[in-house]
Amino acid sequence: MQKLTSYIRNVPDFPKPGIQFKDITTLMKSPDAVRHATEKLTALAQPLAVDKVIGIESRGFFFGPLLADQLSVGFVPIRKAGKLPAPTVEVSYTLEYGTDQLAMHRDAINPGDRVLIHDDLLATGGTAQAACQLVEKLGGEVVQLLFLIELNFLNGRRQLVYPVQSVVCYDQ
Amino acid sequence: MQKLTSYIRNVPDFPKPGIQFKDITTLMKSPDAVRHATEKLTALAQPLAVDKVIGIESRGFFFGPLLADQLSVGFVPIRKAGKLPAPTVEVSYTLEYGTDQLAMHRDAINPGDRVLIHDDLLATGGTAQAACQLVEKLGGEVVQLLFLIELNFLNGRRQLVYPVQSVVCYDQ
Repeated sequence: MQKLTSYIRNVPDFPKPGIQFKDITTLMKSPDAVRHATEKLTALAQPLAVDKVIGIESRGFFFGPLLADQLSVGFVPIRKAGKLPAPTVEVSYTLEYGTDQLAMHRDAINPGDRVLIHDDLLATGGTAQAACQLVEKLGGEVVQLLFLIELNFLNGRRQLVYPVQSVVCYDQ
Repeated sequence: MQKLTSYIRNVPDFPKPGIQFKDITTLMKSPDAVRHATEKLTALAQPLAVDKVIGIESRGFFFGPLLADQLSVGFVPIRKAGKLPAPTVEVSYTLEYGTDQLAMHRDAINPGDRVLIHDDLLATGGTAQAACQLVEKLGGEVVQLLFLIELNFLNGRRQLVYPVQSVVCYDQ
């Protein structure tokens, strides 16, 4: 098995000049790499005995259900506002230009639930922080933020008050 | 194990009056139901010996990677245009009002690949047909369109020229 980083494609200047985009579609094409990444995520999550795995739209949906299945717990999607059909809690968060809104179903988690929040990549942490706020609104306990990839140089974990773990880190 | 339909929530008048929306987030909350649904999808796909499972954004990402993992083949996402970072093929398709565009990476499948296209739900079939066109553009062979849910009364499979299977059907 090659290193996971060898399956991740670096795409320069996407979505805009200066950004080195980490493309995991190349990893998803390899069933061995997907299994290996799922095992790594599962090993980090297993000791925490969570009740739910939350995945953030859209790339958090790639590994979220696989991880939830390995842990034998439910999967909950956080989506862009307006996409979920039943009553939701919502939160606005700041993007570089303007704001965006995330939503989660009100009945997705129960007060006291031990929750793991997953996304494919931690950059500046704005989206992850918004996800934490949604869990807090419903009285859940964020026990871990678990990413496949972390961009260390953007210091995203500094603004997150909950434990952060990631499988692959980039220092530049 | 209860019937899968008992885990699917019917939301009236979403996204607009008259539509009975089939909400699978309630199914995703149950690890037993997710496993059961994955087994059903896998049983329908297994005999076809596909090379790739394609999932359509976003809800096709819930079961697509689980199914690909069970079949030990790669997973490929079809996304809204502008989201994928590497060179893509694109196709426009007609919505009730206006058009939308789907995209897939050019290197996602190889000519001659046996491809399964998965989405959570088959309604009128417009999105699924667009997905087929993307596979055709890259010289892949669509051997199956596999849905978790099919709305029989909308006759979506009538406009699809490839074999269609689904786990749960609604007649009204």
